[in-house]
Amino acid sequence: MGDYRFFHQRQHRRLVERALYLDREDCHLRHLIRGDRRMADFSAAGGGIFYDYSRQRVDEATMALLFELAEAAAATDRFADMAHGKKVNVTENRAALHMAARSFSDHPVRVDGHDIKPDLKAVRNQIKTFCDAVHGGEITGSTGRSFRHVVVVGIGGSYLGTEFVARALEAFADRDVSLEFLSNVDIHNFASIWSRVDAERTLWVVISKSYTTAETMANEDLIRRTMQERRLDPSKHLVTVTSKGSPGDGDAGRGLASFHMFDFIGGRYSVTSAVGGVPLGLYLGYDRFERFLKGAEAMDRHALEAPPEQNLPLIAALLTVWNTSFLGYPQTAIIPYASPLSRLTPHVQQLNMESNGKSVDALGRPLAQPAGTVVFGEPGTNAQHSFFQLAHQGKAFPIDFIGVLNPQYRMDEGAFKGVGHQQELWANLLAQATALAMGQASGDPARSFSGNRPSSIIVLENLDPEDVGRLLAFYEARTIFEAFIWGINPFDQFGVELGKVTAGVIRGEMAARNQNPEHDFDAVDAINRRYLRMIFSGRLPG
Amino acid sequence: MGDYRFFHQRQHRRLVERALYLDREDCHLRHLIRGDRRMADFSAAGGGIFYDYSRQRVDEATMALLFELAEAAAATDRFADMAHGKKVNVTENRAALHMAARSFSDHPVRVDGHDIKPDLKAVRNQIKTFCDAVHGGEITGSTGRSFRHVVVVGIGGSYLGTEFVARALEAFADRDVSLEFLSNVDIHNFASIWSRVDAERTLWVVISKSYTTAETMANEDLIRRTMQERRLDPSKHLVTVTSKGSPGDGDAGRGLASFHMFDFIGGRYSVTSAVGGVPLGLYLGYDRFERFLKGAEAMDRHALEAPPEQNLPLIAALLTVWNTSFLGYPQTAIIPYASPLSRLTPHVQQLNMESNGKSVDALGRPLAQPAGTVVFGEPGTNAQHSFFQLAHQGKAFPIDFIGVLNPQYRMDEGAFKGVGHQQELWANLLAQATALAMGQASGDPARSFSGNRPSSIIVLENLDPEDVGRLLAFYEARTIFEAFIWGINPFDQFGVELGKVTAGVIRGEMAARNQNPEHDFDAVDAINRRYLRMIFSGRLPG
Repeated sequence: MGDYRFFHQRQHRRLVERALYLDREDCHLRHLIRGDRRMADFSAAGGGIFYDYSRQRVDEATMALLFELAEAAAATDRFADMAHGKKVNVTENRAALHMAARSFSDHPVRVDGHDIKPDLKAVRNQIKTFCDAVHGGEITGSTGRSFRHVVVVGIGGSYLGTEFVARALEAFADRDVSLEFLSNVDIHNFASIWSRVDAERTLWVVISKSYTTAETMANEDLIRRTMQERRLDPSKHLVTVTSKGSPGDGDAGRGLASFHMFDFIGGRYSVTSAVGGVPLGLYLGYDRFERFLKGAEAMDRHALEAPPEQNLPLIAALLTVWNTSFLGYPQTAIIPYASPLSRLTPHVQQLNMESNGKSVDALGRPLAQPAGTVVFGEPGTNAQHSFFQLAHQGKAFPIDFIGVLNPQYRMDEGAFKGVGHQQELWANLLAQATALAMGQASGDPARSFSGNRPSSIIVLENLDPEDVGRLLAFYEARTIFEAFIWGINPFDQFGVELGKVTAGVIRGEMAARNQNPEHDFDAVDAINRRYLRMIFSGRLPG
Repeated sequence: MGDYRFFHQRQHRRLVERALYLDREDCHLRHLIRGDRRMADFSAAGGGIFYDYSRQRVDEATMALLFELAEAAAATDRFADMAHGKKVNVTENRAALHMAARSFSDHPVRVDGHDIKPDLKAVRNQIKTFCDAVHGGEITGSTGRSFRHVVVVGIGGSYLGTEFVARALEAFADRDVSLEFLSNVDIHNFASIWSRVDAERTLWVVISKSYTTAETMANEDLIRRTMQERRLDPSKHLVTVTSKGSPGDGDAGRGLASFHMFDFIGGRYSVTSAVGGVPLGLYLGYDRFERFLKGAEAMDRHALEAPPEQNLPLIAALLTVWNTSFLGYPQTAIIPYASPLSRLTPHVQQLNMESNGKSVDALGRPLAQPAGTVVFGEPGTNAQHSFFQLAHQGKAFPIDFIGVLNPQYRMDEGAFKGVGHQQELWANLLAQATALAMGQASGDPARSFSGNRPSSIIVLENLDPEDVGRLLAFYEARTIFEAFIWGINPFDQFGVELGKVTAGVIRGEMAARNQNPEHDFDAVDAINRRYLRMIFSGRLPG
């Protein structure tokens, strides 16, 4: 396993010293970024992405120490172990093979001696055949009409990644199929979708590895009831994406088809598996889904093969660890200057916070301080008119800016103030990164900008399916590198268990009251008892 | 003005001592919340909302000190001053009268001796007349066809609040009018909307107080050009919401009508003015917009009249200050267990962070530490499957949970696991608040929950227009109370200026290059020069 302990005494001490050193006024970013070489020395390109960290609060000595840290943590070795099928998810004794789902090579990847690549390829072929048959009108709903609406029924990792990709590639959606997301058990979520779709032409894609997820099963039940009320046969309007042998697997006869998930791909890493493949294939066409996979594969190769000093996700991960554990920033913002990427942040929020929001290392030993960082954000320039007041003059936090050189649409939009829309967008992105770093002194404290606020810029050449795949794989690899450097396991999530158990107790009290109007919620504490009474009365107190 | 200094030595010292005291193991939330009186003692109802702070890390002594702090800061006096038209926006020498926009009393509110209530009423009447005429088909587009699509053209405070309310009340939108938001200068934003609307039946509502906002003006220009290309007269498809006498005001003949904004209502507080009134009146019908205003008015009265110990927004503000400045939490999450409230968080993120992300007090003197907190969130239960791993086992942060007793939709959804959808949703909300507070010990550190993680629960009886108004006004008043307690001015935003100036320089370089292909960006630093070359080449380096 290598040595999981992140806080190697010596490295840790030297990085702490470095952080103190960089707090000096003559290490303010406005000094660090001077000179013609800064950007060349603190940027890297690879896997189809350009990554500029010239405005991070690092110098060459810091980066050298950080690369030593990565080496001491054996981060690249563990990443390679992961790619080769080793059971890096040690607490659950599983491999983590999301990269195999988009590997088009014939190179085998064995888990317990079994090559899993043909299994993944078979699922891809099944998706392609199914999507083609739906688009060709050979597979239809129960009244014989073709499908025009696809609804993903899934929550968390079963939808956030797909939603990100679908929004990003909306401009490519030419199959006359709309895509909706029924994630929440909230009845408003179902009712709102139901009011928009034509039930006769709707295909529900129910996604749950275990086929026991509470919200998804409650919605599946509701869909069956509601479709039957409309005299439509639910089994002709539903497919499942689930584990082999789960209660939702094909043999149970719940739907038109079942597509398999595997225990070596966790929910938040599953966009490039059937979880994303079925809905994205239907929405965009299977060929575009495969282009998306190939972009991800290119970034995977880069993450595996590039030397540390040129390895984008590794460098980005080191900077997360530096900003979080040494400079002490409690959150990170992701600000894409591209509206199609508006749902990137919620996806990465889940991917990163669920993976790395941990208090124990991979061997279960308590960490000196919790790992992970809060991730939030909205697209720019919108964010400038929202929370950037605090970014400039409140407590500082690091920012990932994302820019796209060539937009999906070329309109003859003219030139307002001498520039086009895309230029205006870039002028703002560059201006924010510059202003945050440089700051500006003023005799008036209210108009003073302390600057020294770090940011990176990620540049994509286009927003094609390949680019979206690259970006997805970049954030996946970055998250995993962060975990390996912190010495934690990014693939488990025991922190969500207590809430589930507690919900079970409260649900039980509600079910008892539904059965017996005299039941008065004795199994819960005084606060929850008051709430249960309030909920059943439907009235506010007082 | 009262004494702006927040860190009154004595109060500050006693609160710091209290925070240290509450860090003791016997003050863990699992001990604090014991007993039948906890919720009764640490909750309040008013203005149509129930607010429960029993799971915040406070005891009676802490609350007593916090109420003293509010009194020392003269928070309620300053709130009353604000309501009466005093120029509480001291840096810009303006009143802050968003509450007057939804006051239906005849009580005058004077600014510089002039009663502004009749002016606000006149705008409301103008909105009502206009909406009725559009819905009745008396006002149409240039080809005589009725309007079916309304597009808000505005950014930041000119759209986030309206988007929140429109999403929240989507279930009431029965006027056969869709509502879209063109906020970003990003060409993808325009192109995506343009692909969805029928230009002939589209009304653009351009919102900018100064009518000089860069993004909005670039989009207005693009709309005019694109409509003309379609041989539609833009002036018959456009209304403006702007200041009297601005370049977009009616006399300039840019559109069908102009609705006035006033300098005493700032962008992020403007949802209940014409900024929200025109689009929401068109989307929901004017009557529902007025019901929304009346809900806000009820909460305003509560905030003005309730004694501190029962004043919801004041208590909530004190808890923000306590959590941020004394317990040291760097962010707050807002988690509505109601899908229609999915855009509440981005609105409050702007409202709160732009108001209170400051480093100087209202008199321009540097604060000991910056004010404000990062606000983020997604709806529950979705958030449970996203970032709640970190909430339970990473670094703690306080959470506002929001629950609704009666959903907008009543469907006969049956009972899955013995409970209906709305019950399942509440079971989860209560379970999360409980689990975060209580935690759970385990011999296995990976399955240990430290607990002691604070949260509040805000309960609405319904999700009617009135309730949404109450919620909006609650967060406005809370934000302002926070500012008054911190001693800062929540109505200015000088922190956004440096970015604008810097964007102007970069835009100038781009415009020069558009004119002259030889121009090589001499006015900017080496990093930005490389970016400008990259942007004009359209290619990634390397």
